[in-house]
Amino acid sequence: MSYDDQNIFAKILRGEIPAIKVYEDEQVLAFMDIMPQADGHTLVIPKSPAVTLLDLAPDAAAYTIQIVQKVAKAIEKALGVEGIVLMQLSGAAAGQTVPHVHFHLIPSSVHELGKHAAQMGDQEKIKALAEKIKAAL
Amino acid sequence: MSYDDQNIFAKILRGEIPAIKVYEDEQVLAFMDIMPQADGHTLVIPKSPAVTLLDLAPDAAAYTIQIVQKVAKAIEKALGVEGIVLMQLSGAAAGQTVPHVHFHLIPSSVHELGKHAAQMGDQEKIKALAEKIKAAL
Repeated sequence: MSYDDQNIFAKILRGEIPAIKVYEDEQVLAFMDIMPQADGHTLVIPKSPAVTLLDLAPDAAAYTIQIVQKVAKAIEKALGVEGIVLMQLSGAAAGQTVPHVHFHLIPSSVHELGKHAAQMGDQEKIKALAEKIKAAL
Repeated sequence: MSYDDQNIFAKILRGEIPAIKVYEDEQVLAFMDIMPQADGHTLVIPKSPAVTLLDLAPDAAAYTIQIVQKVAKAIEKALGVEGIVLMQLSGAAAGQTVPHVHFHLIPSSVHELGKHAAQMGDQEKIKALAEKIKAAL
C-alpha cells in the first residue's frame, strides 16, 4: 500500500498535531493513545514511512521492537501492571485505523480490553500516566 | 519471572512434543497454533529461554521480529489475507498461557477473532494451511 503522508501519525511526527510523548529518538516515537483501551495504553512507531509491519524495513522493525521492550518495561515499572498486551494491526481488515505502522502496548488483561479506538479518553488522566512512564524510562 | 523448562514450547523446541512447523533456524521457530483464533494462526518464538517480551534479550527480540515479518508476508501471500494481527501477551494477567515468549500472527480481522486459546482446531486443516505458508516462505 502506498504511504499517505497526511495520516495523523505523520502529522504528529512532523509536529503539526500535538501528542503526549513518552519517548523519542531519531528513529522512533512513543506516545499515549488518546483513545486508550486501558490506562497507560501507549503507541510506539518507527519514524520511517511504512503503512504496515510487512512494509517496514527489517532494520527499522528490529530497532523499533527494542524500544517497544524499553517502553513496556517502563509501563510495568511506572504503573505496577502485571501484564502487557502488545498488539500490532496490519491492514484495515485487521482493524488498523491509522495507515502508519504502530505497536500498541496495553497494560493488564486482554480479556478486559475496551474496543479498539472506540472512544476518547480523559486527556488529563492520560497526561498524568505519561509522566509516570517517562519518569520510569 | 524464572523460566520453566517444562513448558510446552520448551518441549517443542527440544523435539519432545510435535509441532506443525513452518520455519526454523538457529534462533527462531515458527509453527501453527493448534487452537487457532483464525485460519493460518501461526506462532513465532525465539529459541532463547525467556518468559515474556520484557525478559527477552534485545538482540533476540530484534531478530525475532524480522522473522515475524517474514512469516507474516508468507501468510499474506499464501492465504491471500488482507489483514494480519500481531499479538504478543506478556504475563498471565495479559492472557499469556504458555510461559515462553511467543508472537501470534492471526490473519484477517481482530473483530472476528475467536477467544484466545479456547478450543482445539481441525489439525488436518491446520497442516494444510502450514504447507501453503511454508511454500510461500
